[in-house]
Amino acid sequence: MTELLEITDPVEALKSTFRRHASGVAIITTVDTDGSPVGFTATSVTSLGATPPLVSFNVARGSSSWHALSNASHVAIHTLGKENLTLAKRMAEDHTKRFSFDDWKTGENGLPIFDSATSVLIVRILQIVNVENNAVMIGSVESGLLGVEQLALLYHQRAYVLPGEIIS
Amino acid sequence: MTELLEITDPVEALKSTFRRHASGVAIITTVDTDGSPVGFTATSVTSLGATPPLVSFNVARGSSSWHALSNASHVAIHTLGKENLTLAKRMAEDHTKRFSFDDWKTGENGLPIFDSATSVLIVRILQIVNVENNAVMIGSVESGLLGVEQLALLYHQRAYVLPGEIIS
Repeated sequence: MTELLEITDPVEALKSTFRRHASGVAIITTVDTDGSPVGFTATSVTSLGATPPLVSFNVARGSSSWHALSNASHVAIHTLGKENLTLAKRMAEDHTKRFSFDDWKTGENGLPIFDSATSVLIVRILQIVNVENNAVMIGSVESGLLGVEQLALLYHQRAYVLPGEIIS
Repeated sequence: MTELLEITDPVEALKSTFRRHASGVAIITTVDTDGSPVGFTATSVTSLGATPPLVSFNVARGSSSWHALSNASHVAIHTLGKENLTLAKRMAEDHTKRFSFDDWKTGENGLPIFDSATSVLIVRILQIVNVENNAVMIGSVESGLLGVEQLALLYHQRAYVLPGEIIS
């Protein structure tokens, strides 16, 4: 059998192993208590069962989006494709410039919607679980919006990647 | 701007949008209260911050692994690569046959370890958040094991896929 290399430092263990794990890229948006749009690129969006339809995602409580998220009734979760690369990068950089282009509109519940996304879920926040300086946010899907289908955008080994060979 | 197609049924909204979202594939193992190995293929593993190093994953409380998971002190989270396709499928099928091959050993804390994985995280369970018939499990990374690096295994549009073009 293969010999595995032990990593005793837990921070290094997390970093080394997640470098080998890929994830889908999403953008989560909401509206702050003063009405301003807030959003960020996330790689932690996952389903939490289909009946009832629930989702979860993780967020750092020190992030620029935290004030809005922790007060939000709803969020919009956008799944992204190949054509959203520039948007994914913008929503991960300087938070004061994330909504400075004319590529979004205000949708249901005042949520900022990027209609170039491959799809959007309108989600009601049910529960926020604080864990150290992070939070797991759990939400209930209320409806969805389907955009143009395209190759999904992935994040892997600190790079944006497209799906390749289908092996099964 | 693009016209988005509204999906009013929330279950259909969840299914349609997650078809467009890709995820990394992992195997989570633990040991049941009677000492038997338990495990399953998961696409919900995500980091919950690096300092301290935390992870989360989701599980159906009706699954064959739930009894063991809900009583577990630790789990092993295996990240998978191209060579683990057969293992990923086996760990998603008949739960009575998941450990019937000689490709695992018992590691720290009695955890079943598949050493063909690209990496393994040894995780202490901190908190279980029950949500409807599912649960969000939150754990603290204690150490890691690095295996042989290979192309990451992804799940997208109900198929196993490899990473393709790096676009940034």
